[in-house]
Parts: sequence; C-alpha cells; structure tokens
Amino acid sequence: MSSVRYTDLSIEQLLACKQDLEQQYAGFAARNLKLDMSRGKPAGSQLDLTNAVLDKLDTFKTEAGVDARNYGGLDGIPEAKKLFSELLSIPEEKLIIGGNSSLNMMYDTIVRFMLFGTCGATPWCKLPKIKFLCPAPGYDRHFAICEDLGIEMITIPMHEDGPDMDMVEQLVANDDSIKGIWCVPLYSNPQGICYSDKVVERLASMKAVADFRIFWDNAYGVHHIYSEEKLADIFAATEKAGNPDRVVYFFSTSKITFPGAGVALLASSLNNVAEFKKHMTIQTIGPDKLNQLRTVKFLKNAEGVRAHMRKLADELKPKFDIVLNTLNKELADTGLATWTNPKGGYFVAIDTLDNCAKETVRLAKEAGVVMTGAGATFPYKKDPRDRNIRIAPTYPTAAELQTAMDLFCICVKLAGVNQLIAQKKA
Amino acid sequence: MSSVRYTDLSIEQLLACKQDLEQQYAGFAARNLKLDMSRGKPAGSQLDLTNAVLDKLDTFKTEAGVDARNYGGLDGIPEAKKLFSELLSIPEEKLIIGGNSSLNMMYDTIVRFMLFGTCGATPWCKLPKIKFLCPAPGYDRHFAICEDLGIEMITIPMHEDGPDMDMVEQLVANDDSIKGIWCVPLYSNPQGICYSDKVVERLASMKAVADFRIFWDNAYGVHHIYSEEKLADIFAATEKAGNPDRVVYFFSTSKITFPGAGVALLASSLNNVAEFKKHMTIQTIGPDKLNQLRTVKFLKNAEGVRAHMRKLADELKPKFDIVLNTLNKELADTGLATWTNPKGGYFVAIDTLDNCAKETVRLAKEAGVVMTGAGATFPYKKDPRDRNIRIAPTYPTAAELQTAMDLFCICVKLAGVNQLIAQKKA
Repeated sequence: MSSVRYTDLSIEQLLACKQDLEQQYAGFAARNLKLDMSRGKPAGSQLDLTNAVLDKLDTFKTEAGVDARNYGGLDGIPEAKKLFSELLSIPEEKLIIGGNSSLNMMYDTIVRFMLFGTCGATPWCKLPKIKFLCPAPGYDRHFAICEDLGIEMITIPMHEDGPDMDMVEQLVANDDSIKGIWCVPLYSNPQGICYSDKVVERLASMKAVADFRIFWDNAYGVHHIYSEEKLADIFAATEKAGNPDRVVYFFSTSKITFPGAGVALLASSLNNVAEFKKHMTIQTIGPDKLNQLRTVKFLKNAEGVRAHMRKLADELKPKFDIVLNTLNKELADTGLATWTNPKGGYFVAIDTLDNCAKETVRLAKEAGVVMTGAGATFPYKKDPRDRNIRIAPTYPTAAELQTAMDLFCICVKLAGVNQLIAQKKA
Repeated sequence: MSSVRYTDLSIEQLLACKQDLEQQYAGFAARNLKLDMSRGKPAGSQLDLTNAVLDKLDTFKTEAGVDARNYGGLDGIPEAKKLFSELLSIPEEKLIIGGNSSLNMMYDTIVRFMLFGTCGATPWCKLPKIKFLCPAPGYDRHFAICEDLGIEMITIPMHEDGPDMDMVEQLVANDDSIKGIWCVPLYSNPQGICYSDKVVERLASMKAVADFRIFWDNAYGVHHIYSEEKLADIFAATEKAGNPDRVVYFFSTSKITFPGAGVALLASSLNNVAEFKKHMTIQTIGPDKLNQLRTVKFLKNAEGVRAHMRKLADELKPKFDIVLNTLNKELADTGLATWTNPKGGYFVAIDTLDNCAKETVRLAKEAGVVMTGAGATFPYKKDPRDRNIRIAPTYPTAAELQTAMDLFCICVKLAGVNQLIAQKKA
C-alpha cells in the first residue's frame, strides 16, 4: 500500500482506491470498536509499575521533623525539594513543591499575574489587552487557560528545533501587550520537538517587556524513550542575559508516578518565588505532605527517578513502535501525510493533506476510535490548515493500538483520497 | 484568687496584687516553657486515631469504574459525593469534592468572582471598589484573603446568635459594593457561636445585590464536643427566599482525618456549580482521587463520620475542660475578663479589659507560651478595643495545656492590674 503515491494518481485511479478504502473502513466499522487515543493517559499496566508508591510509610515525620499529617509547609517538604533539585539541576530555594497538578500551578501563576501583576508591573487585568505567544501545534490545555482568562493568542509556527524564533523576537520586541509564551521544551506536546540550545538562548535574551514571562512546562523532562535528548538550562540562560525573572518552570510526577495523585512543582527566580509565596500563603495552608513523603520514599533520588523512567520507557517503546511502524508502512510515500519521530514524551503528531484532519478524526470516531479533536493543538481550536492530528499511544493495549492505528491510517487515506478527488472535480 | 474583684480595688491593693502576680509570672518565666497555642492544630495523639485512613486500598476503581490513579474526575468520585451528601444533607449534584484545602477553594471562588464575575454580573476586579462584611472576632485567614485581593472589610459585631443582623441588613441594602459576607455558622472561630435559625433566615432573605454571596464556611459542622448544636439549612432558606445562588458552602475533613491530607468540598446552587466547573476544568484535570477513595473507605458513611467525631471529642473534651475550668477558677468575678463557653469547634475566645490583649499575649510569649496574635481575629488585624484573644487548646498535651493556661491567666491578671493602676494614676 505504501508504494502508492496518491497525489500522482488520476481521478479514475483515485475512485478505485476510494472504493477499496471504503471496503476496508466498513470492515473496521463492523467490529464495534471502542478505543480511546484522545488523551495522554498511561495504561493501567503502566500505572501498576508505580503501585509501591502507596506502600505504608515508616514515619510521618519529614526531615524537618514536621508531622506530615498536620498543617503547615507551604512550599513542600525538604526531602522533596532535595530530590527534584538533584533531578532537574535547579537550586532548592527556587522550588515550590505543590499538590497533584502542574496545570493548576500554571493557571494560578497566570491568575496571580492578572490580579497582582509581577515585579511591580501593572496587574494584567488592568491592561486593555494581554497577548500570549502560542507555538503550535501545542498543548490544548495551555491554550484553554488563555481563552478562559481572555488572553489573546498569537500562533507561532514550530520548526524542528523549537518555535520560529525570528517571528517570536520580532513580535515581542514590538508589542508591549505580549506578556508570555507557552513552551514545552523537551519532547513537545504533540510533536516531540526538543528546543535547541540556540532557541533557549534566544528566548532567554530577546528584548521584551519586564513582565514578559516564559511558561516553561517541562512536562516530559525525564520522559526519554528512544534516546536521551538534552535541554539547555533556561535559568542559566536568562541569568546570563540579565533577565533572571523571565522564567516560570513547571514539572510534575503525573507521568512518573500517578497522573491523578502525583506531585507538581514550579521553579523560578528567588524574587518570583518570594512573590508567589506571599499570595500562596493566603490561598492555602499547604499541599498534601503525606503524598510528597510517599513519592520521595518511592523514587528515592534522581537516579531512582531515571531508573523508574527506564521501566516506563520499556512499557511505552513497543507502543511508539506500533504507531511509527504503522505510519511508515501505511503512509510513507503516499503524499497524504507527514509526521514527527519523537525520541520521548507522550505523543506523535501527524499532518494530513490540508483540510483533511477533521474528516480523518470524524471517520475514526464513527468507526469507534476516539482521537484528540482535530484543531485541538492550535489556539482557539482552529488549525488554519486543518491538517494536524495528535496521536496518544499510551492508553490502549498494544493489540488495541495496532487495530486503532490500522483504522487510523485508512481514515487518513480515505479523507485524503476524497480530498484529491474533490480537487480534481473542481 | 477568683474571689478578688480587681476592678473594685484601691491603687494600694492593686500594687500589692501586681507584686504578687509578678512573682508568680517570674516563676513561670524561669521554667523555659516552649508551648504553642497559636493555631487550631490537632495533637499527634488525635491524628493517631485516623492512621487507618492510610491502610492499603482494596481497589483503585471508583464506583464509576474509573481508575483513581489516572487522570479525570473534575468534581470528585461518586462515593465521596454520596458520603458528604448524606452527612451534610446536601444533594450530590450541588457538591464539588476537591483537594486537601477548603481555604484554597474559598480563595479560588473569590478569584473567579474577581476575574469573571458571577451569574452575568460585572467581574469584581472591574469595579472601583468591593467590600465584604466580616463578623468579628472571626477567622484570620478569611480576612487575609480579602486583604490579599484588595477587598475592603467592614467589621460586624458578633452576638450570641450570630452576626449583628440589623447592621448587616442595613449595610447590604444600601451599598451595592458589598459583595460578600464571611460566616463560620457552627462553633464559630474563635467564639464557638452557633447561628440561630432566625439569623440564617435573615441572611438568606435580606435585600442585596444579585452577586452578593454568603461564604458559608461550615468548618466545624460535625465537630461537637459538649452537645450537638443544630444549624438551619442555608440552602433551604435561600431557595425559599428566592435567592438560590446566594450561598457558597465549604467543608473539609481537615479536622476529621488529617489537616494536611484531608478532602475539601464546596456546595452551591446548580447554576453556580456549573459556572465554577466551567473554569475549574481549565484550571486542573482533577483532584487526588486516591485520597478521596481512602477517605471514604475509612469514614464509610455519615454515621461512620459521627462515630469518628465522637472519638475525637473524647480526645478534645478534657482539653476544653482544662481551658474552661482554669478560666473559671482564675478569672471568674475578677472583672478582668469574659469568655465564651463553646459546645464544639476548636477554640475558646476571651475578652480582656480594653487595651490589654496585646500586652497579655506579649507577656505569655515572653514566658514561653505562644498564643494567636492579639488582633488576629479582626479585619486588618486591628481589634478596635484590643481585648480579644483566641485560645486554641488542641495541640498541646493536657499537662502542657494546664501549665499554659495557668500562666495565661496570670498574664491576663497582670496586664489587667497594670491597666487599672495606670488608669488610677492618670
């Protein structure tokens, strides 16, 4: 199949292909599939590798002598700071260890900037308009935060080494209402792109207003699968460039331990951390210290995290193999799709022919396979070329995933062939 | 001692008392005490009664068949809704079960009103001024939220049956910038006052702007010690009065299970709950469902909660006895102090002579006993008569508490006698 280059076919040949593809599609549709590839959720078998995190604690006392059952400890227990400091090479005093959701920490950080401003600047909610740069395809939940808070989003194209920095620099230098940029710098969601050292350096040093902030969501910072990609130190870069307060860094164990019961953190300059804590101490008495304690007991130290991630990678690699091998077998050289080959993270992103993503996702859904909605990877859920689809291979079993990918490739082809036929008729 | 009515003494008699009290005080000061009665924290021995909440779970599946380890479930697991619905007599669909902090849910609720408004009204941050009514003495962390968000606070005196409702009604009817009132309606912090049915009915039915909200922090709703006080149903009252969206109700297990690792909730009208969830689904993927699961497994049902609370009351009653008996023995009929006799909750509040609270707390601190700061129970930490002190008996052991109360009463008397001497000299 993959030897057919659909874009070179005549309308008669395309119509014959269409008939064939429709038959294949009908075969899948008759199987009453119910498969979900819509979210980056680990499978139950992957979660089982972490069950020991729930083992009985030997002590409720933290290293500081505090009873973790009781109130107190706004920014996390010392042993959690030590672990994440070692793992991420960030000094402990820059860390705030929180509850179970880094998304929540991101939302609350922007809300604080809206209500209070930062480093003495005007609160963003008092300004007539606020804009964020949104490298896309990107993470739908980042964009949803902007939409919820009325922040205008500007789509930035992604290149192989990160966002289009010429465009980023040009925009930020000339528009004071641009206050932030969303970045998933390692194994980006959904393309698995890793920011180059040069991109990190340009983000850190570019001219921008004083309260411009990089939201550095290093969600997949230790989530290697095929190789261990490196990421430049954003704090070192911003400090060197004289912009020490520019970055707010986020991380969590949601995809290390349990998605619903992990430990999230943020890291930022001492200035920013002090400012955040001033408001956080009003918002809450503190995070769940028992969960921090059990997470540290399970992961032990940085090498413990890396060893655990290798186990998870062993679980994930066969699934990524299925996705990439099937795409390669079914869609390579067809002219109907291109895709990324991520070395880690949680997703593969595919570009169909223009105007075929929604139709592909619709076809898959009608045959029982739910994908992330087409457009979801762009601001306002609007993919200007309607071509990008996020594939989340982690939740189904290998057998389910193979079935889902076989169907998905048929859907890509059927939508593409229909599009080519329509173009030829027009 | 308690037979001396200090306010009737001559200056010579007072000077003799002062000398005697200073000797007693010096005796305590020499003991190098280090006791903390500043916060409403359970003692370790009380927390031990809850350790079984950490027992191994039989299953990770919720009643809805969802894996509690994984993502999802924005508003809580079904079994948690069932338990709290039964316990609080609130329909399940009005509940949002959250993370470990009801304070966090309160803060976030006000932040949403600031940024988005509610029920179609103007966002509060777009208005020139917002005011809240603050029945006081009250909970310092409520007042701190207002201060953080720039909400002007109006102090409302407390009566034996709740806030001064004549004043509340008059203010709210005539000032559109008053958008909320803080209430701890059962065993109020710090006085242990229980709102009467009439006060609940007046709060529910009074004339107010459409986006006026009652923040109903029922923190001590099941925290009976000496008797089981009843609280009228605020939802029934607001619905009957045609103000169904007026209340946001908060509750948590922080003082049922573990302060740092309990389960918090809010309850409100279906309108409000839908509005809150629209933003919450952007803020987070969901709370820690494993902690909800283990909390429900431990507490079982409403009767399970009540049985557990009776155990905690057995632990707390001797401590409240020590506080109340010591106050009675040392300060009754002295003319130097009055205090409340709460039937439950976490605190006892004492009023010294005017202008003696700060000095009393200072004396206690210098002798090694930390009390909640004088003034903390009032907006802006300013007690207009400098007389209210919150006593938190739960954290020290019974022996420590007896020592601390003996010293505290000497401090009340010493500060009071010094004040009377100064008045006579003036």
